[in-house]
Amino acid sequence: MNFMEKLTAAMRRNNSLVCVGLDPALNKLPAVLQGRPDAIYEFNCRLVDATKDYVCAYKPQAAYYAGQDCDEALKASIAYIKENAPDVPVILDVKRGDIGSTAEWYAKEAFDRYGADAVTVNPYMGYDAVQPFLDYADKGVIILCRTSNPHSGDLQNLVADGKPLYVHVAELVRDKWNGNKNAALVIGATYPEELRELRQLCPDLPFLVPGVGAQGGDVEKVVKYGCSADGLGIIVNSSRGIIYASKGEDYAEAAGAAAKELRDQINSYR
Amino acid sequence: MNFMEKLTAAMRRNNSLVCVGLDPALNKLPAVLQGRPDAIYEFNCRLVDATKDYVCAYKPQAAYYAGQDCDEALKASIAYIKENAPDVPVILDVKRGDIGSTAEWYAKEAFDRYGADAVTVNPYMGYDAVQPFLDYADKGVIILCRTSNPHSGDLQNLVADGKPLYVHVAELVRDKWNGNKNAALVIGATYPEELRELRQLCPDLPFLVPGVGAQGGDVEKVVKYGCSADGLGIIVNSSRGIIYASKGEDYAEAAGAAAKELRDQINSYR
Repeated sequence: MNFMEKLTAAMRRNNSLVCVGLDPALNKLPAVLQGRPDAIYEFNCRLVDATKDYVCAYKPQAAYYAGQDCDEALKASIAYIKENAPDVPVILDVKRGDIGSTAEWYAKEAFDRYGADAVTVNPYMGYDAVQPFLDYADKGVIILCRTSNPHSGDLQNLVADGKPLYVHVAELVRDKWNGNKNAALVIGATYPEELRELRQLCPDLPFLVPGVGAQGGDVEKVVKYGCSADGLGIIVNSSRGIIYASKGEDYAEAAGAAAKELRDQINSYR
Repeated sequence: MNFMEKLTAAMRRNNSLVCVGLDPALNKLPAVLQGRPDAIYEFNCRLVDATKDYVCAYKPQAAYYAGQDCDEALKASIAYIKENAPDVPVILDVKRGDIGSTAEWYAKEAFDRYGADAVTVNPYMGYDAVQPFLDYADKGVIILCRTSNPHSGDLQNLVADGKPLYVHVAELVRDKWNGNKNAALVIGATYPEELRELRQLCPDLPFLVPGVGAQGGDVEKVVKYGCSADGLGIIVNSSRGIIYASKGEDYAEAAGAAAKELRDQINSYR
């Protein structure tokens, strides 16, 4: 099963558009895990156990593992998901982009070394920076379009030929880069009007939507503006709101409850 | 000494604008290294020994290490440079970019985990994706502007307000992002006219110029169009043309000769 099929199947099976961002910072982990050499791995495993029936995807953010020198915990966590929640795809959030011969190595990193089902990539360098990822036809390639951060408009809102840069990206992906039908877009929940515009422009592309929860995105607007005609089409990521729902010993249980609550909130607007 | 001072000092001391790209692919290493568990580290060390008097910087491309699951070889190689060529700065080519709280982890990866003197970053997500790097005032932050790859124009050439996107990036860096005077731009040798234009627009910013050698950039134009008024200002990267100058047992000696030759070729046009 390729990424897109696996994603859709998970959405239907768990009746969920929720993606949990596995972004563990050692200094924010529950006290019960502090000091354990396997703290990050253990944290992720327990989060997966508690949330796997309420989500359509997991999204580990590579920076947390790279910055804390714990690549092995990332690799082991993805392996754990594949073993214990095999129906839930893993999106490795790396936002890579480089010249073709180099991007091939980054594709190997994401898909071969870590075993991810999908990856996020940056379009600034153009087609040949993205194509080595797209060539993995059974993997998903989720391209930054309109990102959730406050200054995302610095470049993305510049208007060329009457259209902002992020629309150019969306149209390139829709019309030229998606020959393998494995592309999707990143569109921040913090820009709901753009989400609506992009859904109209790209009725069939899946959107990864970060920015609800800590970043302040409005869930109702995300669902109403972002869903495709079949009521699917958006992968709504929440990280801190789920993984740090409790800092106590009940952190996993609380994360499960938070994931279920977000799922139900989203579904109430579908 | 901060990155910019260290870079200028290395340029003057070695009378060189050459940067060696440490991009080792296991299957391309000299036969004499094949099968050794420390092949990549050994390769890098011998390259450094042979080239350190002819270069102004080293630039390991993180993708090669990430894709071959050898982060430790990257870390050890940078440590070796700091020990054995302490006057030559290390640019870690990672092209990262993410929302602020995440970019902080990538900055830690580059500067704390690996000990790089400078890093390449992607501007697509705007100021807050770059600022956590720029906040390390003693480190260099080299921002993608006009990249060397064939499709770099897909987005970078789009014209907004009468100026291509890459000019917007250059002006943002020049006018708004460079408060710590630690920013530079990536401009591909394969686009010499743009190099000339950008030097006129940004007389004082250093440029990292990849794309001579295997990618086909013209050295004479790079020097004539790219140097700043003091005859410095460009970091001319060559990877394959130097590190694979010979596949025989004389690979290090050949790399040293190739680095010296490129240095002298560049200097003949300064």
